[in-house]
Amino acid sequence: MTTDQTIQQNTLRKRVFDKLEPTDRSDMPGKLVDLFLITLIAVNIIAVVLETVASIRAEHQRLFEVIELVSVAIFTVEYIARLWSCVENPDYTGETSPRRAYMLSPMAIIDLIAILPFYLSFVLAIDLRVLRVLRLLRVFKLTRYSSAMSMLLNVIREEANAFFAGFFILMVLLILAASGAYLVEHDAQPDKFGSIPHAMWWAMATLTTVGYGDVTPVTPAGQFFGALVTVIGVGMAALPAGILASGLADQLRRNREELTSELRRALEDGIIDENEESELEELRKSLGLSQRIAREVRKSVHDQREASETFCCPECGTVTVREVVQK
Amino acid sequence: MTTDQTIQQNTLRKRVFDKLEPTDRSDMPGKLVDLFLITLIAVNIIAVVLETVASIRAEHQRLFEVIELVSVAIFTVEYIARLWSCVENPDYTGETSPRRAYMLSPMAIIDLIAILPFYLSFVLAIDLRVLRVLRLLRVFKLTRYSSAMSMLLNVIREEANAFFAGFFILMVLLILAASGAYLVEHDAQPDKFGSIPHAMWWAMATLTTVGYGDVTPVTPAGQFFGALVTVIGVGMAALPAGILASGLADQLRRNREELTSELRRALEDGIIDENEESELEELRKSLGLSQRIAREVRKSVHDQREASETFCCPECGTVTVREVVQK
Amino acid sequence: MTTDQTIQQNTLRKRVFDKLEPTDRSDMPGKLVDLFLITLIAVNIIAVVLETVASIRAEHQRLFEVIELVSVAIFTVEYIARLWSCVENPDYTGETSPRRAYMLSPMAIIDLIAILPFYLSFVLAIDLRVLRVLRLLRVFKLTRYSSAMSMLLNVIREEANAFFAGFFILMVLLILAASGAYLVEHDAQPDKFGSIPHAMWWAMATLTTVGYGDVTPVTPAGQFFGALVTVIGVGMAALPAGILASGLADQLRRNREELTSELRRALEDGIIDENEESELEELRKSLGLSQRIAREVRKSVHDQREASETFCCPECGTVTVREVVQK
Amino acid sequence: MTTDQTIQQNTLRKRVFDKLEPTDRSDMPGKLVDLFLITLIAVNIIAVVLETVASIRAEHQRLFEVIELVSVAIFTVEYIARLWSCVENPDYTGETSPRRAYMLSPMAIIDLIAILPFYLSFVLAIDLRVLRVLRLLRVFKLTRYSSAMSMLLNVIREEANAFFAGFFILMVLLILAASGAYLVEHDAQPDKFGSIPHAMWWAMATLTTVGYGDVTPVTPAGQFFGALVTVIGVGMAALPAGILASGLADQLRRNREELTSELRRALEDGIIDENEESELEELRKSLGLSQRIAREVRKSVHDQREASETFCCPECGTVTVREVVQK
Repeated sequence: MTTDQTIQQNTLRKRVFDKLEPTDRSDMPGKLVDLFLITLIAVNIIAVVLETVASIRAEHQRLFEVIELVSVAIFTVEYIARLWSCVENPDYTGETSPRRAYMLSPMAIIDLIAILPFYLSFVLAIDLRVLRVLRLLRVFKLTRYSSAMSMLLNVIREEANAFFAGFFILMVLLILAASGAYLVEHDAQPDKFGSIPHAMWWAMATLTTVGYGDVTPVTPAGQFFGALVTVIGVGMAALPAGILASGLADQLRRNREELTSELRRALEDGIIDENEESELEELRKSLGLSQRIAREVRKSVHDQREASETFCCPECGTVTVREVVQK
Repeated sequence: MTTDQTIQQNTLRKRVFDKLEPTDRSDMPGKLVDLFLITLIAVNIIAVVLETVASIRAEHQRLFEVIELVSVAIFTVEYIARLWSCVENPDYTGETSPRRAYMLSPMAIIDLIAILPFYLSFVLAIDLRVLRVLRLLRVFKLTRYSSAMSMLLNVIREEANAFFAGFFILMVLLILAASGAYLVEHDAQPDKFGSIPHAMWWAMATLTTVGYGDVTPVTPAGQFFGALVTVIGVGMAALPAGILASGLADQLRRNREELTSELRRALEDGIIDENEESELEELRKSLGLSQRIAREVRKSVHDQREASETFCCPECGTVTVREVVQK
Repeated sequence: MTTDQTIQQNTLRKRVFDKLEPTDRSDMPGKLVDLFLITLIAVNIIAVVLETVASIRAEHQRLFEVIELVSVAIFTVEYIARLWSCVENPDYTGETSPRRAYMLSPMAIIDLIAILPFYLSFVLAIDLRVLRVLRLLRVFKLTRYSSAMSMLLNVIREEANAFFAGFFILMVLLILAASGAYLVEHDAQPDKFGSIPHAMWWAMATLTTVGYGDVTPVTPAGQFFGALVTVIGVGMAALPAGILASGLADQLRRNREELTSELRRALEDGIIDENEESELEELRKSLGLSQRIAREVRKSVHDQREASETFCCPECGTVTVREVVQK
Repeated sequence: MTTDQTIQQNTLRKRVFDKLEPTDRSDMPGKLVDLFLITLIAVNIIAVVLETVASIRAEHQRLFEVIELVSVAIFTVEYIARLWSCVENPDYTGETSPRRAYMLSPMAIIDLIAILPFYLSFVLAIDLRVLRVLRLLRVFKLTRYSSAMSMLLNVIREEANAFFAGFFILMVLLILAASGAYLVEHDAQPDKFGSIPHAMWWAMATLTTVGYGDVTPVTPAGQFFGALVTVIGVGMAALPAGILASGLADQLRRNREELTSELRRALEDGIIDENEESELEELRKSLGLSQRIAREVRKSVHDQREASETFCCPECGTVTVREVVQK
């Protein structure tokens, strides 16, 4: 293959990459590609969900098949295109084998899972219903397009060990609650509290405050124990959510601080030129901060600049007034 | 129409505007107008709710009709008056067409929704019951009078994308939970888990921890899956609330900081005169901060001022006073 | 009455006051009085609760009567003693009529409610069962002894308007959810969704995620609407709790800051003498901060002192190094 | 026994101690010991849970017995080994009787509880089922290995009185709700609301939003009261969780601040040598902070150092460098 072709191909590959992973979301064609793929994923989810309704399936059999075939085709092309063009990704420069690195990235795996079941169904005998439901995993392809989503996952990673602690405590409570209920209710309701695993169904429904009511303690001892478990446990079940929420709030706060320090740096020379302006806007978006917060940040930074300090030279004692940039 | 009349009319319009949108809530007549409208809205809500009780409706048929007619009349007058006088609103000065701008403002739309159904019922044939219930939307007219309400909505706007993420995750969990339950329970309870949309009723009741108990998994596999879903999902359902709550706390904190910096500015000349005093009070109210917090802020600001540093040079004994403005 | 007696009486009154409202909780006799009253209140609560159990009441009729009579006697003495000695309360010095001021204080009213029903039962004919349950209000007498309790109530007062907003939104959601369910389920379940007030029972159980399951929508439309309501509303119901929790966290933070600034003031002269030490300890307790937090505060304050600043005299340019106390 | 032997024994004891309580978790043999014990505990829990399932118990009777005997043997050895080697624990140097001090430490008690029931079963006649379930308490042995766990417990200790307040309020609400329901529903459902203790089962299920639905008010008055209780109480039940969550977030924040100040100290001499580097890493781990947070901290500290101010006197041009240590 002549260098000429190679160059041509490379430029093509570069263009493909730019469309698939637009660096700035304002790039029109890139936006269209995103929009198209998002719509396609949504259509897929809806199709799978509706397909499980017997009447609808009977009626639109053909339509669902078409949707499936077209989707798989497009997702396959997308996957190959991404794999082919990933070498253009600056993050992978220096990688010995960028393609393998990309294939092992979470997003690539999600993309693969979205199409693999379809092809596997030819080699392996998978229950059709299972196969259909597996398509729902395509919903995870949306992760790529939601900055807030990734932020949330980010927080989960951050608070991982606090999280783990929350779930660990929940598990311990589940086991203790179930075994306690098993002890006190075993004789009264051998069918529902016949063993700890059985009792766990009640314990789970109680500690998470779901409370289906299909299984409830009937003996006074059981009810007393149940009340105790609930009152103590109710907090624990909500713990992970609480951790997540405050973690998220914390993240937003830190993002704001980052914007602040950036803004301060930009202001050091007194003015903010277009260039800095656009950079700050980029940052604001990437940090997922609202316009209003940005304004607040600007205001507070400006207020602080007003605070001034007086110094004097140790040599000649001349007094100089100078602004203090405070954190 | 002579200029004389125009002037007269304008001054009238100004007065109307001042009564409807009192700039400071301490203005008596404005207060009365507010109070009257709030009461009227409350009466409306109660009327609609009670009217649905057959016995009460039968008895007070006439009363309800009167209330409705009077309310619509008053709300119509209010709407027209606001629309007419809105041009006096300083926010709209400079607008090419202030009236259109006002008509498209959320509050104006809410006001319109409050009366429109009544008039539409003459041209369109709307089910009487639907029509009645639509009146309940008048409750949103209260938004105008609750500063805390608007603050809350404000926070929701702030945290919009975190919010969206929360709901998005909830949706994903709903779909996955429903489809999983559909797979494992389909054969055991074809009536309740016959399709994913059916299974969603259970998934929703479980993930939000409502747990009606009218639909519950019965197979061991189903219960195990159900327990798993609940334990994982319980956090996610409470997420939006958590985000909202910490967002609100954050807002309050920032409001306090704003008051602090204002107070600091007012104190720069050493004293706070009546003028500054009243301004600070206005600000405090507009920020929805309690008296006590205001006191705390004053205290802390004062403490910091005490940290103004006096230096006495050990050599020549010259005294220099310098204030340390601390954040 | 001779001055001599007056003085004697006053000193007695002072002593009574000191026992009932010990200024520092370490005072032994004061502690004992507290402990005794707390126990008595607890005994009362338990007695009322158990008395409602027919079998127990039949058996210990006499005992319950004795407990009641003794308690009322003691609480009456306590009330009178507090009322008599309240004039010794420094907070009331300067009051024109300290006794009336005290009688109208929340704690005094609670004390009155604890005994009033008993005496009223002689003049008015109150249903015995109602009378018995009213005794439970004595539980509020405990508020006086729980610093954390009062802190919590304090926070509620602080966040009052955020709180109100939360409940207001909940109310609006309740009305809208109920009326929506009334519209869609009215024909399917006229007994349960026959009117908006009826539908509210379901709406309440759903929005608060209690989900008894005694009333659930059965029509597809109803279930879809129900799911929508739940997913949107689940956050709102938990809002007040979230606000309360973050408000409480905020309070603790501010308390820590207060301790910090106090500590800083004490440290200004470089050392902390016993006197200051004990004052700080008092403050720490009153702020309800743990020993460990106090240690952390000390550490951070000390760290900051290490930060030093160089100044020079504008007259002679001599350089002086000096510690900076930072916030 | 000759000194020689003593020394030998001591060195042995030291080695045992180092394996059981490795000071740095990177030490390989220590890790293996931990891993082995964690697995053993897990196996125990699973065994106890499964053993309660009649069918499984019947089948693997022998296996369960073996697991039990082996576990007890190992845990006994572990307990004795820890007790014997605890004198090597630097925390106990200076203690008059380190062994007694250790025996009374929470972890030692947990270890004892894990094995004691087995031995007691020989002297006392304990119901076999109770005995079996008691083994589940071994789950608490895991606390030793989860840093996040201990942090959570730490927070609980911190916020103890806020916590207590939360539970106290919940109790008060429980009693009031139960007695209210008892009054209004007593006649309609004497079997379910026959006494306050009975009514508490409903009150508990309602206030914690579990809402089994096995007991619900049926009279309009009862339902109105129930709705009131729920709407007011829903917040209170979630309170402890909220307090815990924000307490945890606060803890993490303070931990980050501690790391920051440490980092700042290390940076005072301008550079961070290996020694400081490893110390910081240790601290980061002990504080349970993620790598990414550590990076953020470094960045912010570095940013602040940049804020070191260079003055050039306009008169004589003398340059003075002064660092602004900011919080």
